Amino acid sequence: MEKSRYETGLAKLSEVDGKVGEQVVQSLKDIAPDLGTFIIEFAFGDIYTRPALDLKQRECITLSSLASIGGTENQLRVHINGALNVGVTPQEIAEIFIHCVPYVGFPRALNAVAVAKEIFQERGII
Amino acid sequence: MEKSRYETGLAKLSEVDGKVGEQVVQSLKDIAPDLGTFIIEFAFGDIYTRPALDLKQRECITLSSLASIGGTENQLRVHINGALNVGVTPQEIAEIFIHCVPYVGFPRALNAVAVAKEIFQERGII
Amino acid sequence: MEKSRYETGLAKLSEVDGKVGEQVVQSLKDIAPDLGTFIIEFAFGDIYTRPALDLKQRECITLSSLASIGGTENQLRVHINGALNVGVTPQEIAEIFIHCVPYVGFPRALNAVAVAKEIFQERGII
Amino acid sequence: MEKSRYETGLAKLSEVDGKVGEQVVQSLKDIAPDLGTFIIEFAFGDIYTRPALDLKQRECITLSSLASIGGTENQLRVHINGALNVGVTPQEIAEIFIHCVPYVGFPRALNAVAVAKEIFQERGII
Amino acid sequence: MEKSRYETGLAKLSEVDGKVGEQVVQSLKDIAPDLGTFIIEFAFGDIYTRPALDLKQRECITLSSLASIGGTENQLRVHINGALNVGVTPQEIAEIFIHCVPYVGFPRALNAVAVAKEIFQERGII
Amino acid sequence: MEKSRYETGLAKLSEVDGKVGEQVVQSLKDIAPDLGTFIIEFAFGDIYTRPALDLKQRECITLSSLASIGGTENQLRVHINGALNVGVTPQEIAEIFIHCVPYVGFPRALNAVAVAKEIFQERGII
Repeated sequence: MEKSRYETGLAKLSEVDGKVGEQVVQSLKDIAPDLGTFIIEFAFGDIYTRPALDLKQRECITLSSLASIGGTENQLRVHINGALNVGVTPQEIAEIFIHCVPYVGFPRALNAVAVAKEIFQERGII
Repeated sequence: MEKSRYETGLAKLSEVDGKVGEQVVQSLKDIAPDLGTFIIEFAFGDIYTRPALDLKQRECITLSSLASIGGTENQLRVHINGALNVGVTPQEIAEIFIHCVPYVGFPRALNAVAVAKEIFQERGII
Repeated sequence: MEKSRYETGLAKLSEVDGKVGEQVVQSLKDIAPDLGTFIIEFAFGDIYTRPALDLKQRECITLSSLASIGGTENQLRVHINGALNVGVTPQEIAEIFIHCVPYVGFPRALNAVAVAKEIFQERGII
Repeated sequence: MEKSRYETGLAKLSEVDGKVGEQVVQSLKDIAPDLGTFIIEFAFGDIYTRPALDLKQRECITLSSLASIGGTENQLRVHINGALNVGVTPQEIAEIFIHCVPYVGFPRALNAVAVAKEIFQERGII
Repeated sequence: MEKSRYETGLAKLSEVDGKVGEQVVQSLKDIAPDLGTFIIEFAFGDIYTRPALDLKQRECITLSSLASIGGTENQLRVHINGALNVGVTPQEIAEIFIHCVPYVGFPRALNAVAVAKEIFQERGII
Repeated sequence: MEKSRYETGLAKLSEVDGKVGEQVVQSLKDIAPDLGTFIIEFAFGDIYTRPALDLKQRECITLSSLASIGGTENQLRVHINGALNVGVTPQEIAEIFIHCVPYVGFPRALNAVAVAKEIFQERGII
């Protein structure tokens, strides 16, 4: 029997974000539970499961997108962890933010690197 | 003898963008020639030549960044061509913009896909 | 029998945007057809059909959002038409953009009003 | 005798934001007092008092605008309170942010919902 | 007798933008005339007439702001002309956009320089 | 013997930001040291040393740019201090953010003024 979009998305979310993603969804329970459902069904069920790019590529693109729009420190926290979980190396993560400098300037890159630094320290990487 | 940042950058710019990149630089000659020089020296000489990510990864990250900030149709034109030049497939390019939807919404993705469509038609891909 | 998300979304898209929305989806056919599907299923099937806000409120919020992010002239074109279709008055549309001035400044408001002017002229409103 | 723009604006600010709006203006006293005056005279005196949209509609549009531009947590705090004060329901507020997802992506919506959650908790709504 | 905010703003608008500013206001007549009034009264009457910065400084700051937010080509057109009118040199205008590169990246700067190039050509500067 | 871009940039960084700039670069040492090098070489070595605008003008343009893009509180902290260091007056700094209101709206201006207030208090200015 085919898995629902929700089940597929939840499995993908766990694969990428471990418990951190679930905490985001959990924190929405008493105010906007459907928003959590849409993240699971649409972002992770519909988008992350598509074939043309693998999970590592998807997390690299996500980090570039989040760093570029700015004001997304909380989401960077989730996805820098997610990127590490699916095999993006710490060096690649730093390099993604450095690569964005010519397109978005130093402030957006510095803000993203500051989040990465916190996470790398939490995980004992640096 | 070591190549200058300008020479290194110009070679990298040609590798990525072919003649299109040179046209951007050329168009700056009579108003802000140093801006063209900085694109060559800094963006292509300093950043694109770094080891941690290969050219294909860099163009994928660039497309994600440009689509996410918006109002960058001219730069998307250059870098969608650049991405194709270094081996990113048309399917991957479309997928990068689809992948950004959960982070930046449909309008930014639709604008980027519209530019991709023009270029894919010019190059006889679709 | 329950309608699929796609059928529900397509009906809602037609209700809001008439043929203009379908044209957007149609234009994606040869490059990113799934992007059109996601607009129908997710934006119109999942979001626009929710109960807490009516269609008129939703189009007002959409116009405010599109004007605020900028670089969304094509999407404003679709949704200014959509707003008129569901009963938002031309005066309310202009007022939404005026109301956004204290939050996003004059340039974003002027750009949105310029699109509204084109559409109001096409539809013989002014 | 006609009330001045300042008096009209101050009355409107109190109606919408209660004491919170005054605190914003008060906090500007020793650095940029005229900025507070402009908020009262222009934003609340000139814009919020206009006839085409009622206060409830204006606060809905404001929340959509603030959520869409990002990095406006402090202003969302003021205007989520303001929206509640003029009769927008907690369910409508959450729904406005959910409605913006297709236009601005999940991160902007999640950031706005997080502010709403704090305020709903402070006011004993959830 | 004291001049009204409108008269003061109109005089300042003419000083900065000549006929171009009036055309913007004129183009709003049949759709959102009050928006034109607010530009004259608030932007030019209240803000541009303040003492702490002179007109040349104000136009430099305006060009930096417009280039940085992006999607403001129409407003850059008005204010690059305005900057030239109040004595900012073509070299300074180009330099403002180059100076913004480290903060906003190359695309925003390139877009602004492209508008400057059109205007410099129209005015026979290059 | 000619100074390197790094030496020139470091001298300029010290002139503008004193120790605060060095701290930013220092904080990048264990995660992205080259990002600090690029700030020194490109932003301060290549851009800030150019002739067409003086340091005071450059810091005014920087403050306008940072306030306009939003989410740059950390960078505003560095450059409000930098602006004071090179002779921009506290009154001019507040006025720059007030001047940006018509272009970017009140929220971006309020966020920048809030950072300025902290710094003016730290430095005993207010």
